[in-house]
Amino acid sequence: MGNCVDCLRNFFCGTKNTNVRFSLPAVCILLQTAMIVLFGIFIRYDEESDSHWAKHKKDNNITSDIENDFYFRYPSFQDVHVMIFVGFGFLMTFLKKYSFSAVGFNFLIAAFGLQWALLMQGWFHHLDPVTGEITIGIESLINADFCCAGSLIAFGALLGKVSPVQLLLVTLFGVTLFAVEEYIILTLLHCRDAGGSMVIHCFGGYYGLAISWVLYRPHLHESKRLNGSVYHSDMFAMIGTLFLWMFWPSFNSAITDHGDGQHRAAINTYLALASSVLTTVAISSLSDKRGNLDMVHIQNATLVGGVAMGTAAEFMITPYGSLIVGFCCGIISTFGYLFVTPFLEKYLKLQDTCGVHNLHAVPGMLGGFIGAIVAAVASEAVYSKEGLISTFDFVGEFADRTPATQGGFQAAGTCVSIAFGIVGGVCVGLVLRLPIWGDPADDNCFDDEVYWEVPEEEESIPPVLEYNNHMMHKHQDISESNFSVEQS
Amino acid sequence: MGNCVDCLRNFFCGTKNTNVRFSLPAVCILLQTAMIVLFGIFIRYDEESDSHWAKHKKDNNITSDIENDFYFRYPSFQDVHVMIFVGFGFLMTFLKKYSFSAVGFNFLIAAFGLQWALLMQGWFHHLDPVTGEITIGIESLINADFCCAGSLIAFGALLGKVSPVQLLLVTLFGVTLFAVEEYIILTLLHCRDAGGSMVIHCFGGYYGLAISWVLYRPHLHESKRLNGSVYHSDMFAMIGTLFLWMFWPSFNSAITDHGDGQHRAAINTYLALASSVLTTVAISSLSDKRGNLDMVHIQNATLVGGVAMGTAAEFMITPYGSLIVGFCCGIISTFGYLFVTPFLEKYLKLQDTCGVHNLHAVPGMLGGFIGAIVAAVASEAVYSKEGLISTFDFVGEFADRTPATQGGFQAAGTCVSIAFGIVGGVCVGLVLRLPIWGDPADDNCFDDEVYWEVPEEEESIPPVLEYNNHMMHKHQDISESNFSVEQS
Amino acid sequence: MGNCVDCLRNFFCGTKNTNVRFSLPAVCILLQTAMIVLFGIFIRYDEESDSHWAKHKKDNNITSDIENDFYFRYPSFQDVHVMIFVGFGFLMTFLKKYSFSAVGFNFLIAAFGLQWALLMQGWFHHLDPVTGEITIGIESLINADFCCAGSLIAFGALLGKVSPVQLLLVTLFGVTLFAVEEYIILTLLHCRDAGGSMVIHCFGGYYGLAISWVLYRPHLHESKRLNGSVYHSDMFAMIGTLFLWMFWPSFNSAITDHGDGQHRAAINTYLALASSVLTTVAISSLSDKRGNLDMVHIQNATLVGGVAMGTAAEFMITPYGSLIVGFCCGIISTFGYLFVTPFLEKYLKLQDTCGVHNLHAVPGMLGGFIGAIVAAVASEAVYSKEGLISTFDFVGEFADRTPATQGGFQAAGTCVSIAFGIVGGVCVGLVLRLPIWGDPADDNCFDDEVYWEVPEEEESIPPVLEYNNHMMHKHQDISESNFSVEQS
Repeated sequence: MGNCVDCLRNFFCGTKNTNVRFSLPAVCILLQTAMIVLFGIFIRYDEESDSHWAKHKKDNNITSDIENDFYFRYPSFQDVHVMIFVGFGFLMTFLKKYSFSAVGFNFLIAAFGLQWALLMQGWFHHLDPVTGEITIGIESLINADFCCAGSLIAFGALLGKVSPVQLLLVTLFGVTLFAVEEYIILTLLHCRDAGGSMVIHCFGGYYGLAISWVLYRPHLHESKRLNGSVYHSDMFAMIGTLFLWMFWPSFNSAITDHGDGQHRAAINTYLALASSVLTTVAISSLSDKRGNLDMVHIQNATLVGGVAMGTAAEFMITPYGSLIVGFCCGIISTFGYLFVTPFLEKYLKLQDTCGVHNLHAVPGMLGGFIGAIVAAVASEAVYSKEGLISTFDFVGEFADRTPATQGGFQAAGTCVSIAFGIVGGVCVGLVLRLPIWGDPADDNCFDDEVYWEVPEEEESIPPVLEYNNHMMHKHQDISESNFSVEQS
Repeated sequence: MGNCVDCLRNFFCGTKNTNVRFSLPAVCILLQTAMIVLFGIFIRYDEESDSHWAKHKKDNNITSDIENDFYFRYPSFQDVHVMIFVGFGFLMTFLKKYSFSAVGFNFLIAAFGLQWALLMQGWFHHLDPVTGEITIGIESLINADFCCAGSLIAFGALLGKVSPVQLLLVTLFGVTLFAVEEYIILTLLHCRDAGGSMVIHCFGGYYGLAISWVLYRPHLHESKRLNGSVYHSDMFAMIGTLFLWMFWPSFNSAITDHGDGQHRAAINTYLALASSVLTTVAISSLSDKRGNLDMVHIQNATLVGGVAMGTAAEFMITPYGSLIVGFCCGIISTFGYLFVTPFLEKYLKLQDTCGVHNLHAVPGMLGGFIGAIVAAVASEAVYSKEGLISTFDFVGEFADRTPATQGGFQAAGTCVSIAFGIVGGVCVGLVLRLPIWGDPADDNCFDDEVYWEVPEEEESIPPVLEYNNHMMHKHQDISESNFSVEQS
Repeated sequence: MGNCVDCLRNFFCGTKNTNVRFSLPAVCILLQTAMIVLFGIFIRYDEESDSHWAKHKKDNNITSDIENDFYFRYPSFQDVHVMIFVGFGFLMTFLKKYSFSAVGFNFLIAAFGLQWALLMQGWFHHLDPVTGEITIGIESLINADFCCAGSLIAFGALLGKVSPVQLLLVTLFGVTLFAVEEYIILTLLHCRDAGGSMVIHCFGGYYGLAISWVLYRPHLHESKRLNGSVYHSDMFAMIGTLFLWMFWPSFNSAITDHGDGQHRAAINTYLALASSVLTTVAISSLSDKRGNLDMVHIQNATLVGGVAMGTAAEFMITPYGSLIVGFCCGIISTFGYLFVTPFLEKYLKLQDTCGVHNLHAVPGMLGGFIGAIVAAVASEAVYSKEGLISTFDFVGEFADRTPATQGGFQAAGTCVSIAFGIVGGVCVGLVLRLPIWGDPADDNCFDDEVYWEVPEEEESIPPVLEYNNHMMHKHQDISESNFSVEQS
């Protein structure tokens, strides 16, 4: 019997079975059905999206519909939504034959993740103890998109090496872990992390890296021919880069305080991003002997200003402080792509397809500590008394917390997110090693044909064939015994 | 004489003349000139976009500029605008050699259609009986974009088989029919249809299908080599898909009531769309023997949640209700692509290039009936008295209407839109059969070269030719009598 | 010694040294460091983005956070941001082998330009004489993006012929000149120019043309093989076109007056753009003997309605007036692409890669004069007394200015912008002729490989080689003495 299990295991590991015809539909239908049932039990409209809004307005002396949170946050929500689906999706299309999977699987797991996130985040943050119901509004949708982002970042480290079924599991567990660490960091430790340097990028980055480390493929070089870009796939990736870059001010300001909070977060992020573009270009050019720029750096390291400002964007970090953050992180991230990613692969057995280590994990961690420092030096002179209280939410049981203490808690929060990412990632990685999820063989990675119907590149065939036929006749005229047929 | 007419007809039908050098400029200039004249007579700024706004504010006790409808609707308007031009335009670029036409003709007919729509919708809804003028504001622009959408959907069924002149006619008549059916459904029947399941998708879908049925081409298989995608054209189509998918919450909430109406419509649409992604993936994978996903399904059926929620999005359908709608419609639409489209083509002589039957016609019809059911079961307990009145506009002559009656009228409205689509489409199709509009021959369909200057793909030619020349010499050295020339 | 200088010059001019390994990083780091220092000295948050906002609200009787300027302008800001980075960036990707540079250099210089613009515009418009500080808010970010646009337009004329170091200089000087001419036009002459027909498009266009004229390359035809598009590069360019086209209403309304000003500017721009699409298509079709459309026209001339409405959009130009502007300018611009650009190149030695003469310079100038005319005929009857004052800012020292006088000043402003563009461009062009900036040789223009690591197009090689090997064996069977090897 034990022998038989070994046989089975050998069979699965020997020749990978990538047929997901039953597992993928089963998982999709199961998860979606579960979502419907759980939404039926728990999820309701909040008072701003319910048709009792007219009554709510009257009861709360709200004079105008424009005070509905929808109008404060909807433009930012749509920008974040674009970042999740077009930004993350297209950023990963750079591989020459994996664009369908990059954008398609991103689409699939984000669409599932946001539903599961509404439930998980609802249970932790918005569960009404009396009715047992979760109420959702526009801010919940933004938070759900944020929560997906953690798993999409992890996808970046795994790109090309896992099946869609595995990705759904990564998302299922990733969103769950996210909700727990977010609850610990934001509620228990009472950290501020509007743009998610800690809870999204640092967690998501280390989560993906840990999974990738567990799933290490010693023979991945067998797919080396496909692990690279072509001219137009790099252009598609730039669509992703630019939409992420342009809308990052919305990302970091989407759930900050109304008024100056959102305003300041947008300005700071805008500046940090601009700064990191210039240092990325500088280091990229300096690293090549002809001074040529590398698309990998431009596509990724330019975004690092946004990641690193995820915590501090809503603080009074000052405009030049934002520029300094972008300046330093642009350099660090580009050096990461040049030296750290190859090092990790060679010595730590860590294959990180998109370099999330340099774009999310490290900059997210730095962003967490930058936030801690900026929080620790906050003063009433700079913020005003009211501003300090509203920015750091020093109310209720936290009314006596000082900025210095807050800084300490922010730093602690960053460590919590790293720990959750690594430990959670290792556990999920072990689950994914079960040989039943349909992942590709080592010589079959980075290839859309494993999971997609890919159109044949027949564009040039008809004229060539015609031409060949023509030439064949010519050949036959000249020499009956020889001919040359080809197809490209 | 009759003989001569026959000759003429044979001549035109025999060898299609696709030269639109005079007809296209003439139609464009004529239509645009007509627009200018009619705008000069009829169209004026409304009180919120006129420089008398300062006075209007004072007269109506409006305290702040932020109360201007512009700030309630402009973000949604821009999202809808992106859907019309990038969304619909790029969704249709999937064909390997018809991307210029897809995005270019979409651009042309939408740019004309929105002007004509401002006039047509203005005459029916905003004509001041005293001054004889139509006043327009931001909501008019959104409605004009919506009105174009009907004709763009029809374009999807006709893609690759008609000339730009024919498309302008499709739009001219389509917008006209749209304005009439919209007036009947929204004003006379007093239906609610914020996202246009009935008036946009159901009408537009059946309109396009009816035209395509009249224009049936028995020898279309002669263009079969071009009726398919290549790798990068599928990626361009995904840009369209994703912008449609992401911004659909704006589409369905753009003209709903301020406050909770817009808020709820966005949430419901967001959820239905997420749900339809998972079921689309499930059915697409299940339908292939290796479990491989089909880009056609991912590009189209994932959007069906938005179509099906067009009417019900602003109602209290509940979050799990939205998920159920997306769940079911994702399955129905994917099955449509698998079985119904081939069936229609084979047995009903209906060539539907983009499958608008499965994405717009049927889901729009279902959306109309879902809206009817949700309206019929509406109650004061759920909506509150005020909410019920404001959601369904039970004021004025409709003050006594009950939800059940409203449901009946909603269902009747759906039938009206189907009838208008089919009858209108057949009539327009007959007009388009006149042999003077420059449509392509059966073996020339789906080809940009008929209407565009297409750049030669000369990228790879020079090196290959050089190489060949080199090889030819080599061959001649070896064997004087044989040589091999190729071109790829 | 002089001889030695000549040697050096000959050396540099003879064989161009395009290695920017030290110059590009040095310039990037230097400029970014300067930005950080200057931001540290000058730039602070304004009262709406500072944490003293709560106090500011109380002091100024502002009842709600929604009155923060952020909520009036943020959606337009994000649209403008997309236009700068995706719009301008992708519009220039049409060249077959210069897409990396188009989108990458656009990214680099806009990211630098917006920082420098915040400083330059701040010094001229927002410098507090007491504290010596510049305060910034959301409107500053929009203005900074606008300011970059001038240099990005100039990039369009230089596309493919300059190095990234030169482009950074074009931006450094361009932003400086922009801030000065803007100060003269908007503050000293008290012109209105919300969408920048004069200060952005007219200035930017002539600035780029003048630089290009100074940098004339008599042997540019040596790069002719690369100065054209391929199918998919034209599709990428359409992404740029459409995002510019769709978001132009936001561009022209982003910094107009709250309320009716923003509302009206959006409507007018929307209409002018729609109108120019139809006339562009008409002229493009008419100009080809088969009536075929040219992508160059569709990509560019369709946008001209937005350029030409840059000044007049916020005025009461009437809806049909907007249509007429779009109608005429669409025709003028398309004729420009057909006849003027070739003429300029042949007789004026002016190589204008993207045709900015037809899209920005001339339409911007026309837009300035259209604005002058519309301003001159403004009357209290049309605008209302309050509307006239608020639209043209007839307050303070300008309280007595009449509309007719305003029209004169608007026309004068247009001339100022042309003068600044041409004179400034010639001076900057002379600086760029120094042979130390790493620009490409005449036979190396329009080629990404000069400044980028470009992936090899190895997609099709492996299967072809396999197939060839197969065929070779076959050949050998048939005739031992002949074989055919190829590579495509």
